[in-house]
Amino acid sequence: MRRIITLTTDFGVRDGDVSVTKGVMKGYAPDADLIDVTHLIQPQNVAEAAVILSRTVFYFPPETIHMFVVDPGVGTARNGLAGRIGDQWVVGPDNGALTLVLQQAEARGLEVQFVRLAEPRFWRPEVSSIFHGRDIFAPVCAHLANGVPLDAFGPALPAPVRLPVAPVTRTATGLLGEIIFTDHFGNCSSNINAADLAGLGPVRVRVRGTEIIGLARTFGDRPAGSLTALINHVGELEVAVVNGSARERLGITVGDRIEVIVEGS
Amino acid sequence: MRRIITLTTDFGVRDGDVSVTKGVMKGYAPDADLIDVTHLIQPQNVAEAAVILSRTVFYFPPETIHMFVVDPGVGTARNGLAGRIGDQWVVGPDNGALTLVLQQAEARGLEVQFVRLAEPRFWRPEVSSIFHGRDIFAPVCAHLANGVPLDAFGPALPAPVRLPVAPVTRTATGLLGEIIFTDHFGNCSSNINAADLAGLGPVRVRVRGTEIIGLARTFGDRPAGSLTALINHVGELEVAVVNGSARERLGITVGDRIEVIVEGS
Amino acid sequence: MRRIITLTTDFGVRDGDVSVTKGVMKGYAPDADLIDVTHLIQPQNVAEAAVILSRTVFYFPPETIHMFVVDPGVGTARNGLAGRIGDQWVVGPDNGALTLVLQQAEARGLEVQFVRLAEPRFWRPEVSSIFHGRDIFAPVCAHLANGVPLDAFGPALPAPVRLPVAPVTRTATGLLGEIIFTDHFGNCSSNINAADLAGLGPVRVRVRGTEIIGLARTFGDRPAGSLTALINHVGELEVAVVNGSARERLGITVGDRIEVIVEGS
Repeated sequence: MRRIITLTTDFGVRDGDVSVTKGVMKGYAPDADLIDVTHLIQPQNVAEAAVILSRTVFYFPPETIHMFVVDPGVGTARNGLAGRIGDQWVVGPDNGALTLVLQQAEARGLEVQFVRLAEPRFWRPEVSSIFHGRDIFAPVCAHLANGVPLDAFGPALPAPVRLPVAPVTRTATGLLGEIIFTDHFGNCSSNINAADLAGLGPVRVRVRGTEIIGLARTFGDRPAGSLTALINHVGELEVAVVNGSARERLGITVGDRIEVIVEGS
Repeated sequence: MRRIITLTTDFGVRDGDVSVTKGVMKGYAPDADLIDVTHLIQPQNVAEAAVILSRTVFYFPPETIHMFVVDPGVGTARNGLAGRIGDQWVVGPDNGALTLVLQQAEARGLEVQFVRLAEPRFWRPEVSSIFHGRDIFAPVCAHLANGVPLDAFGPALPAPVRLPVAPVTRTATGLLGEIIFTDHFGNCSSNINAADLAGLGPVRVRVRGTEIIGLARTFGDRPAGSLTALINHVGELEVAVVNGSARERLGITVGDRIEVIVEGS
Repeated sequence: MRRIITLTTDFGVRDGDVSVTKGVMKGYAPDADLIDVTHLIQPQNVAEAAVILSRTVFYFPPETIHMFVVDPGVGTARNGLAGRIGDQWVVGPDNGALTLVLQQAEARGLEVQFVRLAEPRFWRPEVSSIFHGRDIFAPVCAHLANGVPLDAFGPALPAPVRLPVAPVTRTATGLLGEIIFTDHFGNCSSNINAADLAGLGPVRVRVRGTEIIGLARTFGDRPAGSLTALINHVGELEVAVVNGSARERLGITVGDRIEVIVEGS
């Protein structure tokens, strides 16, 4: 079977650097099947990469290899890593982009294993100090696709770097969380998920000084233009405007507080 | 032979949702060959999806499967469909996106056949109420690629939903039509096509209060900066600025009137 | 082995024209492996295409076919070409997009060979006067992938068109060059390369009235927000802002002068 390699980067899609990374992969692993996740992570925004990875990694077939390169520390002392998370593989700089995927893995009881990339024989012969995506991570992905075992790439890396994660806290009247992502449509999702809401009964959602009464099941249950709260496609509490943009309507940005208020509390 | 699946959506290219759809397809049909048509349909703009599909579907090899997901009604009573149009397959919500492709099929005398998606055994086990692209349409495409026959997916759907289509009307002096699409270059194409113009002789084209004399054969026949009318690559009357943007120059938007005036009329 | 065809165009990614080009390729060469380089070349900017090609072509495996279509002269007397540059193939309009790749080929002593596309039996049966990407270049790429020999496509084309190239000149105090590209991150690269700087000793770099002292090895060697000069991933002298945009900070545009001043000169 052809192995899938996915690419999650902040390279943009104008310069050709993504294609160079793919060209290098194909040089080592001609049969690899390459799938773009995104190349429009905000430059150097590792936290955004963490959200995107948490929304994508586990929807791929077993043995998929996920390369992520948002790498403000390229060429410095930060490590590169390769690892296994359940039945998926990951390769990239060790800077926190795996934070949410690791949380998901723990919640699901998946086994994880990581190594520090330390064996230049699996890299391009010349390594630029500013483009490890091309020179280290792409060839490592290709060698993984070719069946090189994980421990060949370097020594064990016991604990990948993790970013601080905003907690969901219980309040006197419900829950307090945070907006973690605003998407292409302007839908704004939070760190509060369906499990957090289980058993609370009817609720209101407050964000940016506005209250939304109740949760909709889907967008089309409300008239166009309605401000709506619902559980999104990855199980997160989300604020949306039907056929519009909640981000624009309310001026929501990542990091904004979001409250769930239990009715009658 | 590896089957091609194309993807036409309004998902954008930043969030990773396109990749998730592909990951799901690959889980069911590892050998499918995935080709992006576009993910930048204006959100919820089914009419724009209809234009894009009319410009792309028939340029693919026989047995290609086209998934289209611009789906403001996701999770409501609107149907999902799969179908055959000539030697091409289509899968998506039944909301009008096939309107122009169906017109083309009729003009060419192609056979068509549709079913309503009603068999959850061809879907993902859990179906989100807001992401049928991932949970219904992607797996249905994959099962089609694997050779599942069309009538296995559900009962016949006799007449897919159609959007209203602006007519081309004959006037005392020529033709009256409408701008239907403005492209990446700012070229503005209309519902008037080469067949409508056949036999009219020399013409002027009027749009946004400006008249263009005659039709050019190609851009390079006129100096850079010239406002030009020509028959575009899909046979439509188009207004363009050589090495520039007619959309910006004249402020053209979809739905604007465009007139063809026969010289001497 | 599946042959790779890359695509470098100014088609944009919204209209579906890229997918049509791919659909046509797949019709002739079902096993071809298609990789996007970019579709966001500024419309009609052949010089930008030349830079992108110089940054990408030689990172692909041997026998890769590179289609480039930035084609303001489509349908006019300009030629189409196919050619071999070392172990890579190229196909596109003969308008100068290969200028920098040809310079690289000469520097590396690679053999080159070109033909003028003159054999319609390798094109689509109907050729639009405005979309040779779909109707000529795509099928020619596919036939090359299928093993048709280069000289079958037309007579020899001895010297492809070249754009004027800004020289790097030695001055009393160092070097004078030009900004040739500004990338997704706002990094600004020049026609001065690592070889030009060899043996000069410590330098300052002057651009847009600002001086930068010394060359950094990588971004992370300087604090976030620092204006920095370094050798980029393709060996060019580049001006960057760490975790920011030099293009925005200094208002740099392609064509701006950049000076290297040898310390103590």
